[in-house]
Amino acid sequence: MKTDIDFYFDFISPYGYIAAMKMDALAAQHARNINWKPFLLGITVLKTMGLKPLMETPLKGDYCRHDIPRLAKLLGVPINLNGNLNPNPLPAIRSAHWVKQHYPEMIGSFCRQLMIAQWQLAQDISDIKVIEAVLQDLKINIDNLATDIQTNGLKKQVVAEVDRAMKVGVFGSPTFVVDQEMIWGADRLWMLEHWLTHGSWSPLSQ
Amino acid sequence: MKTDIDFYFDFISPYGYIAAMKMDALAAQHARNINWKPFLLGITVLKTMGLKPLMETPLKGDYCRHDIPRLAKLLGVPINLNGNLNPNPLPAIRSAHWVKQHYPEMIGSFCRQLMIAQWQLAQDISDIKVIEAVLQDLKINIDNLATDIQTNGLKKQVVAEVDRAMKVGVFGSPTFVVDQEMIWGADRLWMLEHWLTHGSWSPLSQ
Repeated sequence: MKTDIDFYFDFISPYGYIAAMKMDALAAQHARNINWKPFLLGITVLKTMGLKPLMETPLKGDYCRHDIPRLAKLLGVPINLNGNLNPNPLPAIRSAHWVKQHYPEMIGSFCRQLMIAQWQLAQDISDIKVIEAVLQDLKINIDNLATDIQTNGLKKQVVAEVDRAMKVGVFGSPTFVVDQEMIWGADRLWMLEHWLTHGSWSPLSQ
Repeated sequence: MKTDIDFYFDFISPYGYIAAMKMDALAAQHARNINWKPFLLGITVLKTMGLKPLMETPLKGDYCRHDIPRLAKLLGVPINLNGNLNPNPLPAIRSAHWVKQHYPEMIGSFCRQLMIAQWQLAQDISDIKVIEAVLQDLKINIDNLATDIQTNGLKKQVVAEVDRAMKVGVFGSPTFVVDQEMIWGADRLWMLEHWLTHGSWSPLSQ
């Protein structure tokens, strides 16, 4: 019996978006389910690791500004970087948690469509109205969303989820965990595919 | 006329070693020369970027301890991590600069063999005797090495070389620069190969 692929990402991560656009086909080809697991780089990278935001890191920021569009092109993923490149992830991750609670079968569609809104349509997911529009497109009743995601109970559950991700060892977006192998980076989809195909790190054919 | 591949690495980087073991075959297949360009992560990552050493970064250190041997296996590169994992890079980079000045045609062989000593034979390249033995195996006269690499002139030239690498935008080990495209990471050899084959970021076939 094949285990699921745990797919960890932050909604604010363009690399997470690029991977998200490839996950469904990849999982389907290898008959695996995906567990969509949004987390917060602000807690893993900034607080726990003590690092700077990617785009504000000297040298690396410039590299990524060049790299994100070329990697998207190479992987065949449309991307639009003219929107807010530094959105607030909290409304998105809290809404994702709310979707998991009330419409668990919709979580994949919600995460995918919300990242498309941010990174393909250059909308700003800091804005709850953008999130509500995505939910409405998915025929989800949003009457209670705005108040539900402001409750202390839900906020605490989100923090607890990010803690669980860190206990697994997750730090960067995207991260894939399958059969206890953790693989970090949209540029490592080839490694995820290798594992899904072979179930081992048997050497690549030359 | 095909331009060279600039290959930036730090001798103390196991990922740099893994890439070094793949470079000659890759360059030969695509009729490119390699410029071997050792630099110092201690200046790029630690001082300029203000980050911590990889292995001391929370979460990421644990990830890399698992990742380095599996990536080496996947790429068919033997690795031995039982040596000093935190060697002093200065004798090695200064010696490399000395080799470039006095025996420029030997620089590739020297870098390759010195990384094999460290990362395949678990010797410690902090020790000048290890470096001298590699040079002697290459039939290079080492009589003046130990004094030459302690001169202020040579030390300054090494620092100037690392500054030039940072001006290009190099920060991590390994980094490949070809036709002004910069590619970072031993896990991105597939991207380097794609560029060498296509000369563009044309989408991968699905």
